Amino acid sequence: MNNYIVKDENAIYYEANYSSDNALFLKLGSECFILTDSRYEIEAKESVKNGVSVLITKNLYKLANSLIKNSKIKKIIYDPKEWSIFSFRELSNNLNINFKERVDLSHKKRIIKKEYELELLSISAKLGVEAFDRLANKINKFGFKKDEYSLTYIAKEALSKKGKYELSFEPIVAINQNSAKPHAMPTSKKLKKSNLLLVDAGLKYKRYCSDRTRTIFAKKDFSFSINQKFKSKKIQKIYDTVLKAHDVAIVKARSGMKAKKIDSFARDIISKAGFGDYFIHSTGHGVGLDIHEMPYINSKSDTIIEDGMVYTIEPGIYIPNEFGVRIEDMVAMINGRAIIL
Amino acid sequence: MNNYIVKDENAIYYEANYSSDNALFLKLGSECFILTDSRYEIEAKESVKNGVSVLITKNLYKLANSLIKNSKIKKIIYDPKEWSIFSFRELSNNLNINFKERVDLSHKKRIIKKEYELELLSISAKLGVEAFDRLANKINKFGFKKDEYSLTYIAKEALSKKGKYELSFEPIVAINQNSAKPHAMPTSKKLKKSNLLLVDAGLKYKRYCSDRTRTIFAKKDFSFSINQKFKSKKIQKIYDTVLKAHDVAIVKARSGMKAKKIDSFARDIISKAGFGDYFIHSTGHGVGLDIHEMPYINSKSDTIIEDGMVYTIEPGIYIPNEFGVRIEDMVAMINGRAIIL
Repeated sequence: MNNYIVKDENAIYYEANYSSDNALFLKLGSECFILTDSRYEIEAKESVKNGVSVLITKNLYKLANSLIKNSKIKKIIYDPKEWSIFSFRELSNNLNINFKERVDLSHKKRIIKKEYELELLSISAKLGVEAFDRLANKINKFGFKKDEYSLTYIAKEALSKKGKYELSFEPIVAINQNSAKPHAMPTSKKLKKSNLLLVDAGLKYKRYCSDRTRTIFAKKDFSFSINQKFKSKKIQKIYDTVLKAHDVAIVKARSGMKAKKIDSFARDIISKAGFGDYFIHSTGHGVGLDIHEMPYINSKSDTIIEDGMVYTIEPGIYIPNEFGVRIEDMVAMINGRAIIL
Repeated sequence: MNNYIVKDENAIYYEANYSSDNALFLKLGSECFILTDSRYEIEAKESVKNGVSVLITKNLYKLANSLIKNSKIKKIIYDPKEWSIFSFRELSNNLNINFKERVDLSHKKRIIKKEYELELLSISAKLGVEAFDRLANKINKFGFKKDEYSLTYIAKEALSKKGKYELSFEPIVAINQNSAKPHAMPTSKKLKKSNLLLVDAGLKYKRYCSDRTRTIFAKKDFSFSINQKFKSKKIQKIYDTVLKAHDVAIVKARSGMKAKKIDSFARDIISKAGFGDYFIHSTGHGVGLDIHEMPYINSKSDTIIEDGMVYTIEPGIYIPNEFGVRIEDMVAMINGRAIIL
């Protein structure tokens, strides 16, 4: 790809080692540019990769337009998912060149992680595990009788280490019935001993995301260990089914397989246990600079899984108005197999 | 507008009283639909306005496409800023109808706040003021000698009331030179007695944003009162100028005026005091579900200000490498005049 333009914040970061919420990245032949505004000038110049020129402007699209015009290139690649109809019109205004679409341009480049990215993702995942441990300590100390709003805040404190790390996403902290919603919003429901508690949370290390879910029995001094004993036989049966689906998918995953094959490892176990209708989402998704990226591990994906890919395995069973169980880890494909990060 | 489609999360919320990060809202004649996926089904059905049907789908665009096709309408309005080239193509695929552009469709509808919105914004603003008081207490107790990173975290704690409220945006907490950047990022600079401290922060109450800025002299037991005494005559002169610009703009604002007239009330005072070149942004912006919405109070805006509009008045003077002063309040136009919320 000789000429391309990138607009998404993480996509720009991947190219330039710097990004802001008002920026563009352009590669025109052998020249690379990051365009941003004066608020970000100092940081941008300090941070960009060698070979990337920082250009400061009040109007990104106008400057990009004139750079493209003056470069005399004939073709430039862009991702139609990144551009609104409105902004693309500003970019391409009066340019007589071939804007060539490539859907998921940056995500496709990023699907196989480089060595340094695998390292950062591994550190991020480990910091995520430590954060779950801190969270268990905090809840055990003063989280019982607190509601989901407060618990969500405690989770944010634990994950961010009081502001040291950014979060990958707004954490999900759900008790009993609320855990039956895969993307539960917090309520005023209070945590009591013997409740089921689901926590789905992650943080960013040097912009790389972690993502993890545990569902636990909230006894005294509980931990977010994957081995949980529930009083209810029904919950235990479902928990054990989800855990088996999680484990089998990870153990059987191989480089060279289609993503849908890995999805089926988890889905088949849940279906055979009679809960197929209650596993209402896909088995996993890639993780990197974005919390959701390629590869997508679902029942339709023909993507071939390869070494260097990083994704979640997160089967779940959701019984409406009762409870939900989800267990999620991040894995990296290394030497043909899935290694939990 | 008989037929329109909305994609932005807050725009959907405004129409349906519910939204998620994967949703669409459609009005087709007398029928209203919110489309989302199964993760959000329970909450969506619990929350939507009367008269809005919740439709669950794995593919929003495909379902919207077939709803439009089956409705046999001939024209539908959309906002070209909301739609990527890619998603609009999926939406409009094989539809032989007139997609009519309306830039800022939802923002234009929301420029005049309804009674209940004024109430929510008023509560949000009051909670914001209380949060500043909590923040002053915290900084007075244990904020001196902490750096801007820690102070930003303390600000988030105070604003969110430990997780009870979401923030309108990442708060700005800037000391001395750093306050000269209108969008300062935190640094390791530590707060000392007699520093100038600028805090720009807000929270959300039932999704409605507050936004407020105070610049203070960090003496012992300081408060975020608008009356501040600085030791430096230069700072005091600039502070008094900004305060006068803020007060005059609010006192003189009237319904029926153009927005640029209100901008000029503030700008003229700063210019006459000799600091015109250091007031490098506009006087204010609308606030509602989004932290930045219409009306924009700048030197070029011909928007007529009307009763029911809510916007900020936030003049500032920024002396590079020295310090900046900004004072910001939210006002609502009521009976022709601007009332501080």
